[in-house]
Amino acid sequence: MTDQLNPSPRPAEDDVSKTRRTTVRAIEDILYHPFPVLDHGFLRVIDYMGDDGAVVQAARVSYGKGTKASRDDRALIRYLMRHWHTTPFEMCEIKLHVKLPIFVARQWVRHRTANINEYSARYSVLDKEFYIPTAENIASQSKTNKQGRETPLAADEAQEVMRLLRGDAERNYEHYLWMLNEDDDAKRIDPDRFALARELARVGLSMNTYTQWFWKIDLHNLLHFLRLRADAHAQYEIRAYAELLLGLVERWVPMTYEAFTEYQMKAVTLSATAIDLVRRMLLGEQITFASSGLSRREWDELAQTFHLTGSDG
Amino acid sequence: MTDQLNPSPRPAEDDVSKTRRTTVRAIEDILYHPFPVLDHGFLRVIDYMGDDGAVVQAARVSYGKGTKASRDDRALIRYLMRHWHTTPFEMCEIKLHVKLPIFVARQWVRHRTANINEYSARYSVLDKEFYIPTAENIASQSKTNKQGRETPLAADEAQEVMRLLRGDAERNYEHYLWMLNEDDDAKRIDPDRFALARELARVGLSMNTYTQWFWKIDLHNLLHFLRLRADAHAQYEIRAYAELLLGLVERWVPMTYEAFTEYQMKAVTLSATAIDLVRRMLLGEQITFASSGLSRREWDELAQTFHLTGSDG
Amino acid sequence: MTDQLNPSPRPAEDDVSKTRRTTVRAIEDILYHPFPVLDHGFLRVIDYMGDDGAVVQAARVSYGKGTKASRDDRALIRYLMRHWHTTPFEMCEIKLHVKLPIFVARQWVRHRTANINEYSARYSVLDKEFYIPTAENIASQSKTNKQGRETPLAADEAQEVMRLLRGDAERNYEHYLWMLNEDDDAKRIDPDRFALARELARVGLSMNTYTQWFWKIDLHNLLHFLRLRADAHAQYEIRAYAELLLGLVERWVPMTYEAFTEYQMKAVTLSATAIDLVRRMLLGEQITFASSGLSRREWDELAQTFHLTGSDG
Amino acid sequence: MTDQLNPSPRPAEDDVSKTRRTTVRAIEDILYHPFPVLDHGFLRVIDYMGDDGAVVQAARVSYGKGTKASRDDRALIRYLMRHWHTTPFEMCEIKLHVKLPIFVARQWVRHRTANINEYSARYSVLDKEFYIPTAENIASQSKTNKQGRETPLAADEAQEVMRLLRGDAERNYEHYLWMLNEDDDAKRIDPDRFALARELARVGLSMNTYTQWFWKIDLHNLLHFLRLRADAHAQYEIRAYAELLLGLVERWVPMTYEAFTEYQMKAVTLSATAIDLVRRMLLGEQITFASSGLSRREWDELAQTFHLTGSDG
Repeated sequence: MTDQLNPSPRPAEDDVSKTRRTTVRAIEDILYHPFPVLDHGFLRVIDYMGDDGAVVQAARVSYGKGTKASRDDRALIRYLMRHWHTTPFEMCEIKLHVKLPIFVARQWVRHRTANINEYSARYSVLDKEFYIPTAENIASQSKTNKQGRETPLAADEAQEVMRLLRGDAERNYEHYLWMLNEDDDAKRIDPDRFALARELARVGLSMNTYTQWFWKIDLHNLLHFLRLRADAHAQYEIRAYAELLLGLVERWVPMTYEAFTEYQMKAVTLSATAIDLVRRMLLGEQITFASSGLSRREWDELAQTFHLTGSDG
Repeated sequence: MTDQLNPSPRPAEDDVSKTRRTTVRAIEDILYHPFPVLDHGFLRVIDYMGDDGAVVQAARVSYGKGTKASRDDRALIRYLMRHWHTTPFEMCEIKLHVKLPIFVARQWVRHRTANINEYSARYSVLDKEFYIPTAENIASQSKTNKQGRETPLAADEAQEVMRLLRGDAERNYEHYLWMLNEDDDAKRIDPDRFALARELARVGLSMNTYTQWFWKIDLHNLLHFLRLRADAHAQYEIRAYAELLLGLVERWVPMTYEAFTEYQMKAVTLSATAIDLVRRMLLGEQITFASSGLSRREWDELAQTFHLTGSDG
Repeated sequence: MTDQLNPSPRPAEDDVSKTRRTTVRAIEDILYHPFPVLDHGFLRVIDYMGDDGAVVQAARVSYGKGTKASRDDRALIRYLMRHWHTTPFEMCEIKLHVKLPIFVARQWVRHRTANINEYSARYSVLDKEFYIPTAENIASQSKTNKQGRETPLAADEAQEVMRLLRGDAERNYEHYLWMLNEDDDAKRIDPDRFALARELARVGLSMNTYTQWFWKIDLHNLLHFLRLRADAHAQYEIRAYAELLLGLVERWVPMTYEAFTEYQMKAVTLSATAIDLVRRMLLGEQITFASSGLSRREWDELAQTFHLTGSDG
Repeated sequence: MTDQLNPSPRPAEDDVSKTRRTTVRAIEDILYHPFPVLDHGFLRVIDYMGDDGAVVQAARVSYGKGTKASRDDRALIRYLMRHWHTTPFEMCEIKLHVKLPIFVARQWVRHRTANINEYSARYSVLDKEFYIPTAENIASQSKTNKQGRETPLAADEAQEVMRLLRGDAERNYEHYLWMLNEDDDAKRIDPDRFALARELARVGLSMNTYTQWFWKIDLHNLLHFLRLRADAHAQYEIRAYAELLLGLVERWVPMTYEAFTEYQMKAVTLSATAIDLVRRMLLGEQITFASSGLSRREWDELAQTFHLTGSDG
């Protein structure tokens, strides 16, 4: 894996320099270290800028003289998070190196406020690595959620799915190599046969083939990514990356992470109608699905949020 | 194809309404009409905002009283284009419906300043349509350009490539349908067998499978897209879309198109060193590659731009 | 005002064309019409793309075959809004012509995902128009909210503020004209005296001077703007524009407006801690500020949301 | 100035930490150091991420195995710059603290792909600092360039301009303080008089009042900013900041700076027509303005670029 991890081996990975910049010990400790994700993927921090203090510092530039010692850092970060004052969180930046299946990359790239340098299959040959889900992640189509999974398949059924996915990926990859007909020095292996252009040969590969990229994003937009992709509705495979990333955010900016958990990840937004219903319930009124005026789905979510029981749902 | 083209059949496609908005006859004439691209793709205009006059109008807001009748519209648009005054071109917007292979979509989506709604293979089943290049577009790997094609393959070699790509795509698609095990009403075809979650079944499809999306972008960013993707260095398959789009831009904003061609598409940027070389050549100095100080590639480009002959290149 | 409104008089404003595009009657009716805001400002719609149906159409592209007649348009729009599926709302676009004080423009421009063409005071001479607040909007500094107003001043105090603001703005503007020393044809009024560069003369003008611009934005980002700027915490002067805009959004996309009101403008986000408190209160537990564990401000907001009484707050 | 410079005094400014990140000695040396700009402004580097090597590293991720030792770093950076391969330059980031006049901030903020935290005059009281141009920068309106300056004014005229600008700024600021009526602890100085809301009092200040902000941007977008704002057509006052920034970029990423100078700052783009004219001139054809077919302005620029003499211009 070393070769993949060091597309351009840089002294910095081994060396220690002196800096007057903000430094976060807990991130320095894991800098460059590849954390495995899925079967062949990884995620590692390449560089970072700022910490919780940088968020506070930026906020204090905005507030100017008005904030003299009025609030400690933790309280200020919570205040910013609660009121969606997002610009101070944009003052931190992180750069990651990620190896991920192409179908995951296709979801990931929809987050537009980020910088990306992806491995080019027009330029170079892709590795023989495919994502094959493990048995416990192979599940049937959900009946209630059109874009979700339900119960895991039986062991033999899961084996059959794995066999098909692996067989297809490998066969297509063999054809890819055959059409490329090139060795490590980009010379023809079989000199008497054609060597298809890389940009064309790769179009037949399956979407569970791995790619890799550098991805750089500010903390505010990273949190937005995590809110969507570490959510239970996100596809399992991208969630695996998002959940690892949540842990790295906790290492990097622990106060921001705590506030994010309290006010965003574990928060719930109530509609105008739901607020009114809760108000009336607090006054003792008995409210059921039928009398709520909510849609079935909205009622179920409300019931789940507040552990409502005895509903006629 | 009707069904794909009308994900939500809307009266507007057949009807004619009255509007006080800026209207472009040449675009109205082809509105909603799908222009075929590649073997199964298409591109059609769904909506548009503004015209050449809207560019001029926006520029005149900026210039205020200072531009009273000072310049006609065409000259103003050329002036804006030449001086990279880009904001007036952002005042026009176009919305397209595009069907395209997934590997093309992967290049396309890197243009971040645009709005996208893509067909979701987590939510719905993909059609059985794959891009298979025609024989004349199947070419060997370029030796000089790592990301390019060179000479077309011999007819039988091209047939072999097509056979492999089609065979792989079809086999993977058959496995996809088998794993999905669902009919048009999302019921199990074989009730005794599992029906794999759509979001998982699709990961084995090949990257020449077609997807589709709505893509909305302002004129400035569209021109930037075209400068890169209608360029000779772009991959043939995305260039096929870009070249069709160039024609639509010419219909929509003919003055802008003319200025764009003159000052960007057919323009050349000379480096500081190249300017100095041309200056000296204009004074009669004989300059060769060896005496130019340029890299081989830069010299070749300069020679090509100015039809330099007799060079020792 | 005619001259300002027609920086480039265009036939479209008077004419009616035929179009096959989506058309919204309620917006056509007020197209180009300047709605006054503050003392000299206005806001008018110059162009638009899409309607509620365009949001639905884009969503159905994503959902593909999976949504055949499954849900009516209104329910789908509510579903999208509730789950923050924002991309379909990006498929509508609106272009406005706004005249506004420069200090308001400075807040407005922080919304980066929009296109702007502003009147250039480097290029042209600014009009003699300043924002002077009316007496009822002149209020003392809030003691609890560092960036807010509290009680209106007494009538004579308000007059004094108006007199100072107007006097300063007018004096600076007179000096501006004197330094410019140019007539409507950009010739020197006093031929024996210097005519200062416009880009320099304007730096002494006060920030309540009016400017104007074209502003183009997609519906999703417009709603985000309104959520922040039509909020009670926004400065009154920008809120005046935002509230007018809310009414225009209601005309343009009534279903989206309704969903936005229900799920965003009038919605409330509860933190993890607040959810737990409400749960316990619904079970009959008596909770006070002291026992809540919330900060003073968070408790007050919770009490206000649910009309909690008898609190020890 | 200390207080302004340390809105939140952080240990990092004095301390030295160990880091495994990429470190640039030449930037460490001037980190946090405020470089004066104009009469009261400054610009200082607060943090940075990456160096020339980070650009190379990102490019090599894209090129993958295809670039093994094929090109040295400097040549690769020149190649990227020349072919507008912009994404690797997005992998470096810099954060600045800038004090600048508000009219400069209004131009600056139009560069949307950046993060900003600005001092809030709703929240805090602005300092009594105004930009007054020095005599040599006070010039008459250009006759040929509507947005430019021409010859400096005579000494006594310049004094008169300075006197007017300073007088207006100071008078408005005195009224501002009087209306605020608050001391350093936000208590009323004259307890019997009103204290106007800060967000209102500030609207009468002149646009040469200084503000300050944190500004964070990636290297690619910074270079774009510099191409426009360090250009001779930019207003002198923002150019003063841009030129200082150019020097900091040279310190930070010297190879990128060199390539940027060669291929962008000192490069010239020739239109399709201009290329043809140069081609013909190189073949010995005599071409004049009259026979060129170019506009006056385009001909003059071409003549200037290539030092054409004897033209009938």
